[in-house]
Amino acid sequence: MLKTRFTEAFGVAHPIVQGGMQWVARAELVAAVANAGCLGFLTALTQPTPQALADEIARCRELTDRPFGVNLTILPAINPPPYAEYLQATVESGVKVVETAGANPQEHLPYLKAHDVKVIHKATAVRHALKAQSIGVDAVCIDGFECAGHPGEDDVPGLILIRAAARRLSIPLIASGGFADGAGLVAALALGADGVTMGTRFLCTAEAPVHENVKRRIVANDERGTQLIFRTMRNTARVARNSVSARVVEIERDGGTFDDVRELVAGARGREVYETGDPERGIWWAGLAQGLIDDVPTVAELVERTMSEAEELIDQRLRRLVV
Amino acid sequence: MLKTRFTEAFGVAHPIVQGGMQWVARAELVAAVANAGCLGFLTALTQPTPQALADEIARCRELTDRPFGVNLTILPAINPPPYAEYLQATVESGVKVVETAGANPQEHLPYLKAHDVKVIHKATAVRHALKAQSIGVDAVCIDGFECAGHPGEDDVPGLILIRAAARRLSIPLIASGGFADGAGLVAALALGADGVTMGTRFLCTAEAPVHENVKRRIVANDERGTQLIFRTMRNTARVARNSVSARVVEIERDGGTFDDVRELVAGARGREVYETGDPERGIWWAGLAQGLIDDVPTVAELVERTMSEAEELIDQRLRRLVV
Repeated sequence: MLKTRFTEAFGVAHPIVQGGMQWVARAELVAAVANAGCLGFLTALTQPTPQALADEIARCRELTDRPFGVNLTILPAINPPPYAEYLQATVESGVKVVETAGANPQEHLPYLKAHDVKVIHKATAVRHALKAQSIGVDAVCIDGFECAGHPGEDDVPGLILIRAAARRLSIPLIASGGFADGAGLVAALALGADGVTMGTRFLCTAEAPVHENVKRRIVANDERGTQLIFRTMRNTARVARNSVSARVVEIERDGGTFDDVRELVAGARGREVYETGDPERGIWWAGLAQGLIDDVPTVAELVERTMSEAEELIDQRLRRLVV
Repeated sequence: MLKTRFTEAFGVAHPIVQGGMQWVARAELVAAVANAGCLGFLTALTQPTPQALADEIARCRELTDRPFGVNLTILPAINPPPYAEYLQATVESGVKVVETAGANPQEHLPYLKAHDVKVIHKATAVRHALKAQSIGVDAVCIDGFECAGHPGEDDVPGLILIRAAARRLSIPLIASGGFADGAGLVAALALGADGVTMGTRFLCTAEAPVHENVKRRIVANDERGTQLIFRTMRNTARVARNSVSARVVEIERDGGTFDDVRELVAGARGREVYETGDPERGIWWAGLAQGLIDDVPTVAELVERTMSEAEELIDQRLRRLVV
């Protein structure tokens, strides 16, 4: 067992978080993560309504008696989802940890704090992490250039970003982006983090509710199997490299705008990838951790071997180097 | 002290390498690194002729009785420098370690091996590292997206690249790009490396033969203080962000070719940055490690504190997490 400021503050056995993944972070996966002693997050906006989220939380609770959280990603939109209502459904369902991402969560903090909900804010830059600390979140998850989804526009990888954040933050720090095994966990702890988030690695487990072919594709892909899209729109996203991502990048190179790729990148097509198992049907998320993934274990197997590897590394391999 | 396969095979006290840096890796710096128990590399092509390199090796030997190496970067050129003659000067001066970079060193290996010279090849991709191992180099230095100079076109950071390389290589592995302290060293060891190369960090030491103002600029800059140029030419280089790098990127965005930026990026202007201390005079190298550098220690101080931090981390901080 590894005890860190994160495991202590959040009451979990292991310093491992399962990141909120659109369409993927549903009750089956989150409950398996909780049962393995880690902190999993349901993705609020995977559910069509706040009531559906409440139902999903109830379903998750039937599968585990351990704590889990809800991720809420706040993005600019002309017709935004009812964020406050999703949070209300979360709080009224008794969930005690919320991960916020995308935008400053300040307006929601008083409500969450009033209900003893701990908040982890996901940031892609040191300055955003410091801002989150200053407004009173309980922990920061710092998301490096390696991550699936939106790494920001600074392109600073974890080796630098985690260390720079750890040097300046005083609250617990979770490192995200590029983590898939015990060696990565120990590297993050050495850099000053109190735990790691894994996304793509949990996507490629037996319990993740996505088609087997998607998992096979992740296993087959190496460290070059992702691509950055929306770079020209300054809304960069790291996705699995496929014919659709290549086409989007091509259109961007030719000066295309979001309107020119809107249909290609439709979320419904990404969801269809997971459901049908056709990895070429649309855009789907995968991080660089793909290059370190070569099997589809159960969540319990994954957590067990990650922790064994990390402990053996700390207690044996690294110590033996010291003379 | 930390003993690794690298320190054993190369006969140095500490698992730290000072990378070959154009204009910077001269006798003063390399000797200070050797005297501190690490492996430093003179940059062959900083010297105008093979004879000048032999003279620089002799000068370095007057400053240290410990081993050091010579870096030879082989780049495509219409009128290439006399690489074989630089290597001959190296070998005839009795240097026993050569770092090759840029291109496959195969044609030079028989000569180097015949004179008991160990070869470390610098690679920016796992496939190139495996190729280098297959042709018989003694160690690989894997250079991540974080590095100053040429990171290749795959954009794979160290957290992934080091781990992926370590899983597949059997020869000693040195991790390069983004390293500046003991925490980074331990992270690299955890990921499976046998040591780290530091470039920008050694550039910002008292002994580095560059103007004080350049060191002050590195201290002032944060993790966003570098820029990638030559991306559109598929010859990407990470350099210190300044008005010249910004102009080059602008010209590239407008479809400019190398001819359009040739004068801006002239090596002589980079050399003038180091000599005059005007960081805006030309293109000069800096890696993302810049974001972790906030002082100008002597080489001895730097090495001492890096090793203390690494040992304390392994022996105390990480171990205390295990319960």
